[in-house]
Amino acid sequence: MASQPIAVLNRELIESVPITHRGLHYGDGVFETIAVDTSNACLLWEEHLARLERGARVLGLAFERDRIESDVQFALSCSASGQQRVLKLSLLRAGQQRGYTPGLNGQSDVLVSVSPWSTSQDDFRLVDGDVALSPQGVLQGLKTHNSLEYVIAARALVEKGAQEAVLCDDQGYMVEGTRSNLFWVNSTGTLSTSKLDRCGVTGVVREVLLKRAMEDGLPIKLSRATPDALAQSPEIFVTNSLLGVQSVTHYKERTLKQFNVAARVRDFMAGAILAH
Amino acid sequence: MASQPIAVLNRELIESVPITHRGLHYGDGVFETIAVDTSNACLLWEEHLARLERGARVLGLAFERDRIESDVQFALSCSASGQQRVLKLSLLRAGQQRGYTPGLNGQSDVLVSVSPWSTSQDDFRLVDGDVALSPQGVLQGLKTHNSLEYVIAARALVEKGAQEAVLCDDQGYMVEGTRSNLFWVNSTGTLSTSKLDRCGVTGVVREVLLKRAMEDGLPIKLSRATPDALAQSPEIFVTNSLLGVQSVTHYKERTLKQFNVAARVRDFMAGAILAH
Repeated sequence: MASQPIAVLNRELIESVPITHRGLHYGDGVFETIAVDTSNACLLWEEHLARLERGARVLGLAFERDRIESDVQFALSCSASGQQRVLKLSLLRAGQQRGYTPGLNGQSDVLVSVSPWSTSQDDFRLVDGDVALSPQGVLQGLKTHNSLEYVIAARALVEKGAQEAVLCDDQGYMVEGTRSNLFWVNSTGTLSTSKLDRCGVTGVVREVLLKRAMEDGLPIKLSRATPDALAQSPEIFVTNSLLGVQSVTHYKERTLKQFNVAARVRDFMAGAILAH
Repeated sequence: MASQPIAVLNRELIESVPITHRGLHYGDGVFETIAVDTSNACLLWEEHLARLERGARVLGLAFERDRIESDVQFALSCSASGQQRVLKLSLLRAGQQRGYTPGLNGQSDVLVSVSPWSTSQDDFRLVDGDVALSPQGVLQGLKTHNSLEYVIAARALVEKGAQEAVLCDDQGYMVEGTRSNLFWVNSTGTLSTSKLDRCGVTGVVREVLLKRAMEDGLPIKLSRATPDALAQSPEIFVTNSLLGVQSVTHYKERTLKQFNVAARVRDFMAGAILAH
């Protein structure tokens, strides 16, 4: 039986937030989406925490590691264990000041929600997206509650019956999916992923993959390429904390049948992410 | 006596929203901040509504004019009249789906909050900001609940004891203030404001000002200029729905003593915005 979703704000089980909360009005916070395995472990915990801390620094938010860890443990203890779950961990600016100007103490609210989650995945269809991602400037690489571009891009997925869309930047170069990072094998067998220097979330699975690939001797190129590169690619996969390394079975009209690079990546990533 | 702030969601007086609300998680909505005069009129109502509708279209949100107007009237009726107030009107995506992908029906929640507000303004100090605004792409010109860049930029205001900061784009050209549009007079007497083609909120007061200036024979140049232009400017003012046309009294270390262009603008804007 699936557990019910729960939400914990500053160690208190809650169902609502004040209407004046800055998270609601300005998306004033950063978050992580984390896979929790059947033994209650938060996968890639250190990597998630590192990105959260980076975001907190940019936003001027307090980052209290002990408190965050204890709040996460409390939230997990309120949720049925023994099954895979997804944990969303947010640092939101505390306080209810009207107007952009926040208080200067940088106090943060820790919001943790835990939801049931199943990894079963049938076909994974990738299409071209129709939203160009903007350069992110001061927010570059972070995962913030300012997610409108991704929401708008993700609207098209349902209409198209696809699981993911390729998002390009304002110059037409591929960046990522709406909720995942993108990898493709070119016709000479080289694995590529996009440079994320102007926009795009620096995914924690992507970061670990880049490190472990080096150790494993699998060369990966950081590319600046248009979706034309995908049209000729025999193998494409995407990564995120919940999907792990997810092979693309269909790109636009084409059926992909090669999955061996993804399999090798899954091998050397074993233990870091859930197996599929 | 100041009235208390009130909030109305879909015609119901509320104090909180569900923790799973998409506004909180993704900033999934657009808003307007509107001045309400002592006779209960929402100033520049048509202009605000037009921008809100533009935003709703980009986000794929239902825009039901009758419902919005009736909800605003209801909120105003719940708030003490006879004094200036500020009304914040949001269209937020209804529903509580986890993940970026929204439902396709585009149903929107109408959130209206009304707060007491005083226009008294002493010195108005303008400083240079330290956040570069990013190009906004699909969200260009809109006022969305994705306001993190402005929040980060506004943090410095308190530290510097300033009311507003000049924000430049990623190429160093002036765009706007953190919550206002920027106007300056150059040494030959020409009034300028920034082009807002890459980033910046297209302010409703700014739009009206540009139209009425033409009718009044006051030439305004849409400029692409660095803050150097302000250093040599004898007169600077900012505009927004609450400040109206607000003269800058100090720019960095310099005291400004010329306010006549702002006075002329206030004259031909009379009736559209609150007088100062």
